[in-house]
Amino acid sequence: MNKDTLLALLQPDIDQINETMRSEIASTNNTLLQEILEYAIFNGGKRIRPVLSILSARLCAFATMPEGLAAEDQLKPPVNLYRLATVFEFLHAASLLHDDVLDHAGTRRGKPSANSVWDNTHVILAGDFLHARALTLAGTIGGEQCLEIIGNATSSMIDAEFLQMQTVKDINLSEENYFNVLRGKTGSLISAACEVGTFFTETSLEHRGALRTYGNALGLAFQVVDDLLDYQGDPDKTGKAVGNDFIEGKITLPLIHALQNCDESEKNRILTLLKGGQEERTAEGENIRSFIDKNGGFVYARQGAETLIEASLEALALFPSCQARSNLEGLAQYVLIRQR
Amino acid sequence: MNKDTLLALLQPDIDQINETMRSEIASTNNTLLQEILEYAIFNGGKRIRPVLSILSARLCAFATMPEGLAAEDQLKPPVNLYRLATVFEFLHAASLLHDDVLDHAGTRRGKPSANSVWDNTHVILAGDFLHARALTLAGTIGGEQCLEIIGNATSSMIDAEFLQMQTVKDINLSEENYFNVLRGKTGSLISAACEVGTFFTETSLEHRGALRTYGNALGLAFQVVDDLLDYQGDPDKTGKAVGNDFIEGKITLPLIHALQNCDESEKNRILTLLKGGQEERTAEGENIRSFIDKNGGFVYARQGAETLIEASLEALALFPSCQARSNLEGLAQYVLIRQR
Repeated sequence: MNKDTLLALLQPDIDQINETMRSEIASTNNTLLQEILEYAIFNGGKRIRPVLSILSARLCAFATMPEGLAAEDQLKPPVNLYRLATVFEFLHAASLLHDDVLDHAGTRRGKPSANSVWDNTHVILAGDFLHARALTLAGTIGGEQCLEIIGNATSSMIDAEFLQMQTVKDINLSEENYFNVLRGKTGSLISAACEVGTFFTETSLEHRGALRTYGNALGLAFQVVDDLLDYQGDPDKTGKAVGNDFIEGKITLPLIHALQNCDESEKNRILTLLKGGQEERTAEGENIRSFIDKNGGFVYARQGAETLIEASLEALALFPSCQARSNLEGLAQYVLIRQR
Repeated sequence: MNKDTLLALLQPDIDQINETMRSEIASTNNTLLQEILEYAIFNGGKRIRPVLSILSARLCAFATMPEGLAAEDQLKPPVNLYRLATVFEFLHAASLLHDDVLDHAGTRRGKPSANSVWDNTHVILAGDFLHARALTLAGTIGGEQCLEIIGNATSSMIDAEFLQMQTVKDINLSEENYFNVLRGKTGSLISAACEVGTFFTETSLEHRGALRTYGNALGLAFQVVDDLLDYQGDPDKTGKAVGNDFIEGKITLPLIHALQNCDESEKNRILTLLKGGQEERTAEGENIRSFIDKNGGFVYARQGAETLIEASLEALALFPSCQARSNLEGLAQYVLIRQR
């Protein structure tokens, strides 16, 4: 399935998600708060997380449907599914608002970031608002178990941020540690988005586990590809300078692998660069790409992403063929070919 | 009841609250996160909010106890009451962590603030963690209705922060607006703390409403007294410079009332000062106190606080006499005599 076909298939759900978020925002009391939320949420995001909840719910509805009862496209989405799905976009937006304030970011998706339009206090509070609203929706719509899953995912994200800050410049950073950060920062929320989609039908634990596995593998692959695009992407498409992670001294999978496979003198040269200043690292941009390439870092990371996507597709094999499954597969395949 | 007697009566509950929070913090995965949470929470706070939940729960347990079943002090606190109570201390601490980062505060209760010990990113994330943990506990322990009350209180706090930023320097600030900010910023969480204490017994809606009223009036009175202490307190006890609110251009109840009762020329002089720089306002410290005093602002605000405390005591009249009620009354009376 190509990207445009997939997007056309997902568009009605995306529209419905957007409409639900708009009415949620409109229910707040303060017009300035509304304005900031509107700006932060309607900024061109792809709505991947809520779409995953909706596709998971559809998949489970189809899988548990008594035979011959209805065709897949006649299954009505459960009341409140869209409201629960928006929880994931709200949590994602809340963390971006806080990140941008803390990073003093000037832009977000090519537009001025919220913190360059309003002051930090308003932006942090808007993030807090989304955070509180998301968790309240999670518990009141999805029930206690759902709240626990989403609450745990939020805690995991914060744990992983701490772990990342403590280890990202560690020149002995292990692959295991790298994936621990990814699992917390990206995998946990995406796998929670998939898992809570199962709560609208009498889904077996096996189905629930499979969707969790799908989400986790998808999230990890997405992030590995992100780290590859940092070195290999087209800056016009990614919107980021090539080799930005290395310039900031951030060690990701391609470099971790290369450092494990190079000889001692090369390793020492890179370590000296990593301990040094940004200017030296900026000047080394082309060399570092050759270094990683020569030591198999790009091939290794690409294979890692492919293996993760295979695992995510494998997890879906449990479910009967249907449009929802096919869309979930399409999303997984898209991760490998995306260029931004 | 004097302050020391009251404190001695509350101490066992405070100890239990502290112990519960310590074990909650110990269950986090990251030791640096634990360290920041520990620092932020064990900083000499009075635990008023969780104590209110516990006393409310005790009061309702006594009020609904079949006659002759047990003496009040034999009523066992429900499992999970302390865990639910800590939600309010966590939310309070989360908002203080974020406030201190945004205000670039250097100290908090006489100690270096968390943001002067760790960097802003860690402190904001620690606040987010407490926020998420609090709402997750609220829903998984207290159930959906409890989560909704606490979630709404959190939203009200943020709405009120927005309202305050938009209006606090408005020289036409009305008393109504002033109380709207107070209700959101302080009243809503305190009244929620009282209300959720009722969820552990089969409490009537009337009892629930009464405890909500008690909490709201108590919170407002607390804040009005705070604003009085800003002008009239002993800096050695309050830890803040006298007249700090006026210096910052923040208009509170004593000044609002005085501005409504002075003559036009005086009013214009104050308004010019409020529009001007901090230095002019600092130099006017003594004069502004005379101005408020002469125009009845202090007496009016003091009477307002007393009326609120009367209303809070009145709300308790519905309940039978017992130690829990007497402690809640003691807390209300303490608000009027506190000097810090």
